[in-house]
Amino acid sequence: MSPLHVVEPGEDVLKTRMIEASARIESTLNALLPLKGGPEARLYQAMRYATMNGGKRLRPFLVLSSAALFGVRESCALRVAAAVECVHCYSLVHDDLPAMDDDDVRRGKPSTHRAYDEATAILVGDGLLTLAFETLANPETHEDPLIRANLSLALAKAAGARGMVGGQMIDMLAPQALQGDGDIGAITRLQRLKTGELFAFACESGAILGRGDNTRRQALHAFAHDMGLAFQIADDLLDLEGREEEVGKALRKDVRAGKATFVSILGIERARDQAQLLVDQAVQHLEIFDERADNLRMVARFVVDRRA
Amino acid sequence: MSPLHVVEPGEDVLKTRMIEASARIESTLNALLPLKGGPEARLYQAMRYATMNGGKRLRPFLVLSSAALFGVRESCALRVAAAVECVHCYSLVHDDLPAMDDDDVRRGKPSTHRAYDEATAILVGDGLLTLAFETLANPETHEDPLIRANLSLALAKAAGARGMVGGQMIDMLAPQALQGDGDIGAITRLQRLKTGELFAFACESGAILGRGDNTRRQALHAFAHDMGLAFQIADDLLDLEGREEEVGKALRKDVRAGKATFVSILGIERARDQAQLLVDQAVQHLEIFDERADNLRMVARFVVDRRA
Repeated sequence: MSPLHVVEPGEDVLKTRMIEASARIESTLNALLPLKGGPEARLYQAMRYATMNGGKRLRPFLVLSSAALFGVRESCALRVAAAVECVHCYSLVHDDLPAMDDDDVRRGKPSTHRAYDEATAILVGDGLLTLAFETLANPETHEDPLIRANLSLALAKAAGARGMVGGQMIDMLAPQALQGDGDIGAITRLQRLKTGELFAFACESGAILGRGDNTRRQALHAFAHDMGLAFQIADDLLDLEGREEEVGKALRKDVRAGKATFVSILGIERARDQAQLLVDQAVQHLEIFDERADNLRMVARFVVDRRA
Repeated sequence: MSPLHVVEPGEDVLKTRMIEASARIESTLNALLPLKGGPEARLYQAMRYATMNGGKRLRPFLVLSSAALFGVRESCALRVAAAVECVHCYSLVHDDLPAMDDDDVRRGKPSTHRAYDEATAILVGDGLLTLAFETLANPETHEDPLIRANLSLALAKAAGARGMVGGQMIDMLAPQALQGDGDIGAITRLQRLKTGELFAFACESGAILGRGDNTRRQALHAFAHDMGLAFQIADDLLDLEGREEEVGKALRKDVRAGKATFVSILGIERARDQAQLLVDQAVQHLEIFDERADNLRMVARFVVDRRA
């Protein structure tokens, strides 16, 4: 971030791998969301607009990296990765709605309700969420129905009222609940629900697909939560210090809303230290894995150094 | 409907059975949606508000009636019934939003976004849809993971862009697409997607749970589509002839919007004849079943004679 910022070993390697993975995710999403004619053409166009828009594909990359630890066939992992991205993109579409965060720009383009309309955006979100579960339950994702059912159950828990949706509800109430000097515990819990549980699903999904033992699954879970929190602190820092053109969405919203964040409570320096501490901790959870976990190790380092 | 309307044999029996079933559905939903404390209390309250509100529970009743044909344990069928009701209720919450149909009243009470707010209503819908898949994938629903995965896949297909969400999209575009003298084919397709596919899932779910053969599953599918279309024609008639206090929602909206419906195209008498024809056809599909299918037979007769 500073002019003295030293390129981490592996940062270029990671970028290359993420770009390669993005292309494979894109083509999986393309297959799941065919262009349609007829009266529902608009819905499919808008679903494609909301998903195939050059996101970083961080969560899908976590799925692929986790799957690689257990020797999972990539065709299976790609479908799970696409399902996670559908859930992530649906949550962005709904969160951007006027009644929610009211954001007009996403990934540098008009958000879905601006490019289409609100009704279409609501239906796009509903359709993408449903598509995620359709994808996981489909035998093409894995021949073992127990694995398909376990994936569906774990994703539903991560995405629903006890996970992402619950976190978004708390965030909507936050101007009252977390105003000014909200405590770190409450914010940590909010972020764990709002973004952490889906990260955790992404990181654990390889273990579900590859029938990994409990120790490995728990290690990935712990990695995901520390990495996810570091990601969120970096997000708060970006919100404060980033350039809108680079980040691709409206910034400084939390400050204007007087919302408590990690940075508003800890201050910039301590927040940055805390993020680094979480990254170190995240990487330590991966000790039981060999060099095949290097992608995950690099991701953890990357998330605190990103500019977008 | 007319003063000479003769009570169908079985109408009272059906009412009693539906009320009994409603109580069991209600207690299953109650267990799936516990009251919570903490900052997300509002979300759970609103999810309960949107579901535990005295609906007719027609779709859950279809699930239980279908399951009874295959000797499925009721504890399993009730969870599938609750999942279907979660999907139905989520669709009502989102459809009622200002950006969609903008309805202030639902089942005689303020719709969810009026009782809470729009952001909460969006999240309630998202949470209920996710809960449906969480419920189906949970081993408590069935010990065989193949059945759980098949249920999830079938529900996702029925609810998603190729089903309910697609139908709602077409309906939103309908003022342009089906204005004035839209054709019966287009309306039939719209309704098949918007309401028919979820009816079909409800009716087939017993066959999935009870490993019914293809002939039986297809018979239930055909029954559901004819019955669902009759249901929709009855809905159009109610919209024209019903009393808002009895029906529990705003009426005469289609006429005001100049939207083509079965009734606007066929006229009242022919629409009523058509509904009756569909009911007879629906009941014929059940010929391969014995008297255990009487609930389904009665439902088919009931849907065209309802006042709410």
